[in-house]
Amino acid sequence: MRMYDLIMKKRNGGVLSPEEIRFMICHYTAGQIPDYQMSAMMMAIYFQGMNEEETLNLTMEMAKSGEMLDLSSIHGIKVDKHSTGGVGDKTSLALGPMVAACGIPVAKMSGRGLGHTGGTIDKLESFPGFSTSIDTEHFIRQVNDIGIAIMGQTKDLAPADKKLYALRDVTATVDNMSLIASSIMSKKLASGADAIVLDVKTGSGAFMKAEEDAFALAGEMVRIGNGAGRHTTAVVSDMDQPLGFAVGNALEVREAIDTLNGKGPEDFVELCLTLGAEMVVAGGRASSQAEARNMLMEKIEDGSALKKLAEFVEAQGGDSSYVYEPEKLPVAAMIKEVKAEKSGWISHIDCDEVGICSLILGGGRETKESDIDLSVGLVLAKKAGDTVQTGDVLVRLYGNDENKLCEAAERYIKACHIGDEPTAPHKFIKGIIRE
Amino acid sequence: MRMYDLIMKKRNGGVLSPEEIRFMICHYTAGQIPDYQMSAMMMAIYFQGMNEEETLNLTMEMAKSGEMLDLSSIHGIKVDKHSTGGVGDKTSLALGPMVAACGIPVAKMSGRGLGHTGGTIDKLESFPGFSTSIDTEHFIRQVNDIGIAIMGQTKDLAPADKKLYALRDVTATVDNMSLIASSIMSKKLASGADAIVLDVKTGSGAFMKAEEDAFALAGEMVRIGNGAGRHTTAVVSDMDQPLGFAVGNALEVREAIDTLNGKGPEDFVELCLTLGAEMVVAGGRASSQAEARNMLMEKIEDGSALKKLAEFVEAQGGDSSYVYEPEKLPVAAMIKEVKAEKSGWISHIDCDEVGICSLILGGGRETKESDIDLSVGLVLAKKAGDTVQTGDVLVRLYGNDENKLCEAAERYIKACHIGDEPTAPHKFIKGIIRE
Repeated sequence: MRMYDLIMKKRNGGVLSPEEIRFMICHYTAGQIPDYQMSAMMMAIYFQGMNEEETLNLTMEMAKSGEMLDLSSIHGIKVDKHSTGGVGDKTSLALGPMVAACGIPVAKMSGRGLGHTGGTIDKLESFPGFSTSIDTEHFIRQVNDIGIAIMGQTKDLAPADKKLYALRDVTATVDNMSLIASSIMSKKLASGADAIVLDVKTGSGAFMKAEEDAFALAGEMVRIGNGAGRHTTAVVSDMDQPLGFAVGNALEVREAIDTLNGKGPEDFVELCLTLGAEMVVAGGRASSQAEARNMLMEKIEDGSALKKLAEFVEAQGGDSSYVYEPEKLPVAAMIKEVKAEKSGWISHIDCDEVGICSLILGGGRETKESDIDLSVGLVLAKKAGDTVQTGDVLVRLYGNDENKLCEAAERYIKACHIGDEPTAPHKFIKGIIRE
Repeated sequence: MRMYDLIMKKRNGGVLSPEEIRFMICHYTAGQIPDYQMSAMMMAIYFQGMNEEETLNLTMEMAKSGEMLDLSSIHGIKVDKHSTGGVGDKTSLALGPMVAACGIPVAKMSGRGLGHTGGTIDKLESFPGFSTSIDTEHFIRQVNDIGIAIMGQTKDLAPADKKLYALRDVTATVDNMSLIASSIMSKKLASGADAIVLDVKTGSGAFMKAEEDAFALAGEMVRIGNGAGRHTTAVVSDMDQPLGFAVGNALEVREAIDTLNGKGPEDFVELCLTLGAEMVVAGGRASSQAEARNMLMEKIEDGSALKKLAEFVEAQGGDSSYVYEPEKLPVAAMIKEVKAEKSGWISHIDCDEVGICSLILGGGRETKESDIDLSVGLVLAKKAGDTVQTGDVLVRLYGNDENKLCEAAERYIKACHIGDEPTAPHKFIKGIIRE
């Protein structure tokens, strides 16, 4: 078998066989197929696409290119959740404890963030002492003991995807639905969960700006997951403005704690309940989404979800007193209020721009080596559809540098559009895709 | 400027500006753009194409990537001829002396062959002592003295094309009309001729199997040449069976000498007169193709074309007595006749297969390092359209190895199709493209 023939076949619109995809991924991972052939293949796939079977085979081969985590010694149905990412996305922090409190084992691998805020791991480090550098044995034991653990992503998880993504990133071959879906799903399959719930965002702050693209990606990933024998569903939700009000690491942790105290922002609570219901049903703890939803609300009301967060923080070396006294979490030295310059209705908030404000304040990483400031960020006071009067506070910026605060304020005022007419309310949950 | 953005632009169907193409070619030649980005670009161009201006700019930048030969010290209009290659293509050997005898300066750079027979240089080495390892000064002086010289291609001729072609060859991005045309024309432009006559072949033995593709390539190249200010025309001719009767190095030299003696095969003579007429008109020595054709025929009849060949061989160190006594040229030790197994009409000869027969006998190179046997090859006795009786000789194979002769014979018998009905005659010259 020669890579040249495979490129030619795909270029001419052919379908790659399972053996051909295996050959390509194995030899590429081993360095036996050069980057210049693989990038030509990726561009050919960009134009000719891959069918369902090819996409599934590619995903499986990438998943198998490194360690496949074996979670079989964890009791019960392991349900993993994955978000395509957005601004103010603190979902794992609240959702994990909520579903764990319902008896679903949460065994999650997570990453650090490269972008406007940190990833789940960075956010959790707002609890002093908290660590995700635990080994697989500790990880499994903790899930069996308290029902929840989060571990840093191992280097050997789907190395083929890592190598391929780095190549696609510099050759303009990222934007293909099959390639995006297989990249995400290869890591999920390698992470060992029995069932997967996907949180696919759409809108100005999402990777998929257009709703139809988000649905297409969600459909592709659901097909891959179920094709690989993992019960998979996807929720498509709005990311045309930040999720909840808080953006920034410790600020988001506070908002997650508020949510577990029953005082969460409406959209964020809705997302947690929708995703949570999918997870609880997939985990076999409820027979309908409605039943699961009630169960989840109960776990908030009776304080058991908050208690689960405290247990979880404690089990991974963190100071759980912060869960009950969130005012102890790091807070920036300065708060700058950005005020409305006219009256009207918030018509739109450029979500990516809000992310950049957080990055300017120091809340994200510009490169892999950057340090993150957990204390900074912003808290929205007004969201799309809200009415405002001149002088009303639009957002509170949290920072440790006056110049950066000014820069972020200028940027925010441009990102927050105030119109003269009422704005039609956003539909927050766009749809749910099940097999 | 970033290569990433250029790939994205082309991928999305955009048009690359002259500056963008210059950036891409300069930095790629200098090793500052990696192969994996260039191969993605080539695949994007395969799918999105390039317009006329982009194609011309790409050609010019590749031509300028190395030495641009300055032939201005040669008197008169320098006319170059280029063939896209085929089986039994000994055109330069006869055509060069013919047009030189008409007073057109022939200053040609030529290559060795990688394929079923050698290139023009290999064939010329059938004359003992002949060498194309001459420097530019010698080359120019010789053209001014006797009107004709052939020099080996310098390493620094269009190095960008060399690098790019090697990459395209392993990434399935060769078959794009703009890329093929710019590759050929970049070398022609760098070779310094004032006018260019292209010999584009079509049929089973040609790179362009389909006639419409041959016309498209011819059109593309004529546009580039004229766009670059070089008077350029193209002749599209048949390569659905070998040109003339002889295939193989010394055998082809003999056929070229026969042609200059007025005893050439009909198709080959026609091709030489058609291409030659274009060259003589482009060189300003005749005002019409008909006039030029008469002039060329006269140079054969009065022996001056043959005499020019002898002068040329002599000037480059070869033994010119072979021109007048071609029986002295190397001939293989064994001749094997392949006979018809049925009666009928020759309906088709698989031209590529005839090339492979020559390669099997040792007449071509399988790799750059292979040695070539100048004495071997084959001479057709019957061509498409001819009538045959069982037992008639179809071809005479010339070889130095009994096993190879048997292998080639078996192959030839399969390649030569005999039908039960007369075959419609081939149109040999398919068309001529002028600006």
